[in-house]
Amino acid sequence: MSYRAPVKDQMFLLREVLKLDSHSNLPGFADASTELVEQILEEGARFCEGVLAPLDTVGDKAGCVRAADGSVTTPPGFKDAYRQMTAAGWTGLGCDPEYGGQGLPATINTCFMEMASSANMAFAMYPGLTHGAYKAIHFGGTPEQKSTYLPKMVSGEWGGTMNLTEPQCGTDLGLIRTKAVPNGDGSYALTGQKIWISAGEHDMASNIVHLVLARIEGAPAGVKGISLFIVPKFIPDASGQPGERNKLECAGLEEKMGIHGNATCVMAYDGAKGWLLGQENAGLRLMFVMMNEARLGVGVQGIAIGEAAYQAAVEFAKDRLQGRSLSGPKNPEGPADPIIVHPDVRRLLMESKAVLEGGRAFMLWTALHGDLEHVSTDEATKTKAGDYMALLTPVVKAYLTDRGFQACSTALLVHGGWGFTEHFPASQHLRDARITMIYEGTNGVQALDLVGRKLGQNGGRGVMAFAQEIDAFVADHSADAALKPYVDALAGAKAKLLDGTMWLMQNGMANPEAAGAGSSDYLHLFGLTALSYMWALMAKAANAKIAEGDADPFYATKLATGRFFIERLLPDAAAHLAKMKTGPDTVMALPADAF
Amino acid sequence: MSYRAPVKDQMFLLREVLKLDSHSNLPGFADASTELVEQILEEGARFCEGVLAPLDTVGDKAGCVRAADGSVTTPPGFKDAYRQMTAAGWTGLGCDPEYGGQGLPATINTCFMEMASSANMAFAMYPGLTHGAYKAIHFGGTPEQKSTYLPKMVSGEWGGTMNLTEPQCGTDLGLIRTKAVPNGDGSYALTGQKIWISAGEHDMASNIVHLVLARIEGAPAGVKGISLFIVPKFIPDASGQPGERNKLECAGLEEKMGIHGNATCVMAYDGAKGWLLGQENAGLRLMFVMMNEARLGVGVQGIAIGEAAYQAAVEFAKDRLQGRSLSGPKNPEGPADPIIVHPDVRRLLMESKAVLEGGRAFMLWTALHGDLEHVSTDEATKTKAGDYMALLTPVVKAYLTDRGFQACSTALLVHGGWGFTEHFPASQHLRDARITMIYEGTNGVQALDLVGRKLGQNGGRGVMAFAQEIDAFVADHSADAALKPYVDALAGAKAKLLDGTMWLMQNGMANPEAAGAGSSDYLHLFGLTALSYMWALMAKAANAKIAEGDADPFYATKLATGRFFIERLLPDAAAHLAKMKTGPDTVMALPADAF
Repeated sequence: MSYRAPVKDQMFLLREVLKLDSHSNLPGFADASTELVEQILEEGARFCEGVLAPLDTVGDKAGCVRAADGSVTTPPGFKDAYRQMTAAGWTGLGCDPEYGGQGLPATINTCFMEMASSANMAFAMYPGLTHGAYKAIHFGGTPEQKSTYLPKMVSGEWGGTMNLTEPQCGTDLGLIRTKAVPNGDGSYALTGQKIWISAGEHDMASNIVHLVLARIEGAPAGVKGISLFIVPKFIPDASGQPGERNKLECAGLEEKMGIHGNATCVMAYDGAKGWLLGQENAGLRLMFVMMNEARLGVGVQGIAIGEAAYQAAVEFAKDRLQGRSLSGPKNPEGPADPIIVHPDVRRLLMESKAVLEGGRAFMLWTALHGDLEHVSTDEATKTKAGDYMALLTPVVKAYLTDRGFQACSTALLVHGGWGFTEHFPASQHLRDARITMIYEGTNGVQALDLVGRKLGQNGGRGVMAFAQEIDAFVADHSADAALKPYVDALAGAKAKLLDGTMWLMQNGMANPEAAGAGSSDYLHLFGLTALSYMWALMAKAANAKIAEGDADPFYATKLATGRFFIERLLPDAAAHLAKMKTGPDTVMALPADAF
Repeated sequence: MSYRAPVKDQMFLLREVLKLDSHSNLPGFADASTELVEQILEEGARFCEGVLAPLDTVGDKAGCVRAADGSVTTPPGFKDAYRQMTAAGWTGLGCDPEYGGQGLPATINTCFMEMASSANMAFAMYPGLTHGAYKAIHFGGTPEQKSTYLPKMVSGEWGGTMNLTEPQCGTDLGLIRTKAVPNGDGSYALTGQKIWISAGEHDMASNIVHLVLARIEGAPAGVKGISLFIVPKFIPDASGQPGERNKLECAGLEEKMGIHGNATCVMAYDGAKGWLLGQENAGLRLMFVMMNEARLGVGVQGIAIGEAAYQAAVEFAKDRLQGRSLSGPKNPEGPADPIIVHPDVRRLLMESKAVLEGGRAFMLWTALHGDLEHVSTDEATKTKAGDYMALLTPVVKAYLTDRGFQACSTALLVHGGWGFTEHFPASQHLRDARITMIYEGTNGVQALDLVGRKLGQNGGRGVMAFAQEIDAFVADHSADAALKPYVDALAGAKAKLLDGTMWLMQNGMANPEAAGAGSSDYLHLFGLTALSYMWALMAKAANAKIAEGDADPFYATKLATGRFFIERLLPDAAAHLAKMKTGPDTVMALPADAF
């Protein structure tokens, strides 16, 4: 397996599709000329390909090991790779310069996180979690908390985690039992058990900053009584260095299907000292700052692991000789043709290629709106970007991870029997990818978030803006003959999305179960529409390059891949619409004991 | 996990839908009254639930172990379970009474194999492989070969395997290198390496009968020079007991994603003594007797493992308390409602229920045709049954395993985070199920077999008979108001299948790549149509029971599940048709280096 980071495709998106340079008047973007960004990404590619990728299988086979004292050892090579990563400053790429970060747009960091996750998802989760915790403290911390924790988290010297889940509560955080008792000195004593804490304990950072949801004694029941705490493994001393060992430990590692290289910990807090982050009983809101960041990051992982699997499948399909092409031998000197000549193998590879390139565009387009929400100087742009982020976060998370897993499944199919063995990376990709459909809210929870909360926010302003943006694109390009198949497909997809949206607005209000029963189909319809838009944008950019005389076959390939998307993936949009519009009656018909 | 065999559903199919008793004039069926069959299946259920199911996780965790001498130890408990299985005569259920079998229809054996595979797929593969080898020897062996091997394989005292694959050849058997040199005494010396040999070596049977594809020295190149050999682990002595140890051994066990309880062996033949089975250079045809049997068996596994996963998901969904029903609390005394109240969870469970019950019907309906092909006294029935078996074997294999894996994936989703851990069986089900999409010909190979070989056989006689049978059903029931939704859906599905068939006939002849590029979509369209027919048959039978005053809610549940199939699964038929009809151009557009 030799993973190659898709820098060329990322740069095509940043330069030709998203027009990164057009935002150079904005903070962060000013220092991110496409030339500089390209250098950064090429450097990042070397690190991910050369350092992280070779450790991917190692991590899967060796896993993490917990000693009797609760300490956890990461797989061989991880610690050194982490040292290299922090030394090169990769953990601070998108962080605030005030705390030592490089202040680049999140869009650029997203490109790097894609590569890192492709190369070694279990590894990339460690800095990924730290970044989420950084964001929460950056957003909600006191100046003292920020100065104590952020610089060391930006440098990667300290790690970070998010502690939500307990055995009796995953999605339903109102059931949290971990309790926090005031110590009288401004700190709290936290007691309880958290499970599935990714990167909860390991040997790569000198301290780990746990952000823990807990209930202050006497707080209201349910989600209104949950607060968020900073609970460091070592309590920072007066000089800011790791001091007293806190009363918390990793009580066990989860035995799991994939991401063996990441320490998924049972964390036991036994009167551990913690400090409130943000306001009392307002922990959930703050946690969702982190959670939304994390959800976008999981969408990135979906694309990333799908890309790694796709690349491995392409390599296999070019190497494996089996059978002859239906249109005559393509490798007449050899005993058989490479299996990439077979139409059904190609169909599988094209499906992944079309969805991954479209998904990458969607991921970066969304990330750019995330940046614009924060730094744009135009109120209308900020508002629209904010609406998009709320609306599209569940789509990015669920659609891209569903499709990322599908790409891994497809890659495994291409490998034939070898895919089922552990000689090739296909099995690991499939097993690793699976978690992305689950954590940070299962994809079913994302669908419910989309239809139950996000869609109706501000009277449906977000989805209407999205539809209008597409309408405007269609109107602007309806006379462009070269773009016609892409524009027609987009218009058709958007009409179905609007149809589904109207159906939900008419039926979901009266009967929430109508919305629930159609939620996943609607989310997939949304994802397909978003990718149709992305393919139209990419086709436009590719056509422009071809029109200006650029002979790089990359652009013709892009156009062909977009056509494949329209012909072979988009037909599912009508099926999703038809399914959701059958309503909830049959879904809900049976009593529980009939199952 | 407490697996419960679906005897009630199987009996509904055998009794009410397939009208087993109407065939009591035929050999085998005469001894298979539905009352007796019900007793047998209930006994089988006790064995599978009580003995095999508890060993499923054990097998996954412990796996098989190979010692330095090449011997293989199966997981703890397997040997004893195998002893119980053979003592009770389960291995001979569908076998010829002349060799000690019980001579029951294959349809009944299929019911038992479903249960056994649900309970413990890795275990059930051992007798499953033996049965395939039994079939090949029964079909192609000399009287002496039959009397030597069959009684001990029927009793399960000896096991059997099929040895096709070599490192350089899977699908493309023309590339086989294992060679056979005549010893001059009627036997041959076989030398070569075979890989992925399921049940290739183990400690449960006193002998293992390997059926090995090899090339006799001087044979023509390619598939026309391949012969099939019986190569026993111990050469039977004059008294028929295991004698001289043959020169073959398990050289290694494959490290793989699932079915850890089954020994997947690298088999090394080093001048091993073998005897020709059937004619020289005609080994492939004979192997396909075994292979077709095995493909149907793999389809059964698809349903079986999906059913096990579905049951575990239902149990989890009833136990796990999280969130509240959108239509008001259903468990007001508890901290939250069981997640089965949530529409999207129900949608997932209903999808599996609809596809598994429809798939079980399709599996048994096909198995019955397999029996009729052999024992019917009516020539037209035999011919049609033979046509159906040829045509539908790839559909049963690929559609049911694609959907079985999907059911496992769905079950894992229902489990949320717990699904990713190894505390629940969801991960094992998903990992085990995966092999069914691959072995005995990948699902892509099945699709190519369907469109490239089976569809056009005898001028398309099989598919036309299938369409006419559906047309007749539709015509006969068009006035039945209670059946209308099922009949309408079936007519719509059949029209699409016919549309796709015509498209293939018009385009696939001229350009084989058109057939190849549409093959998987066509196979899924076929599967959906077949299941539409099954749901119409089941709805008819359920309506009849209700009309005669049977108040068992089983029938109302059947009708509701059928409606769900129509509303939520069948819309994919149009998408598959649309995709395949876009043709091969975009699929084949890119040069290999553009991937």
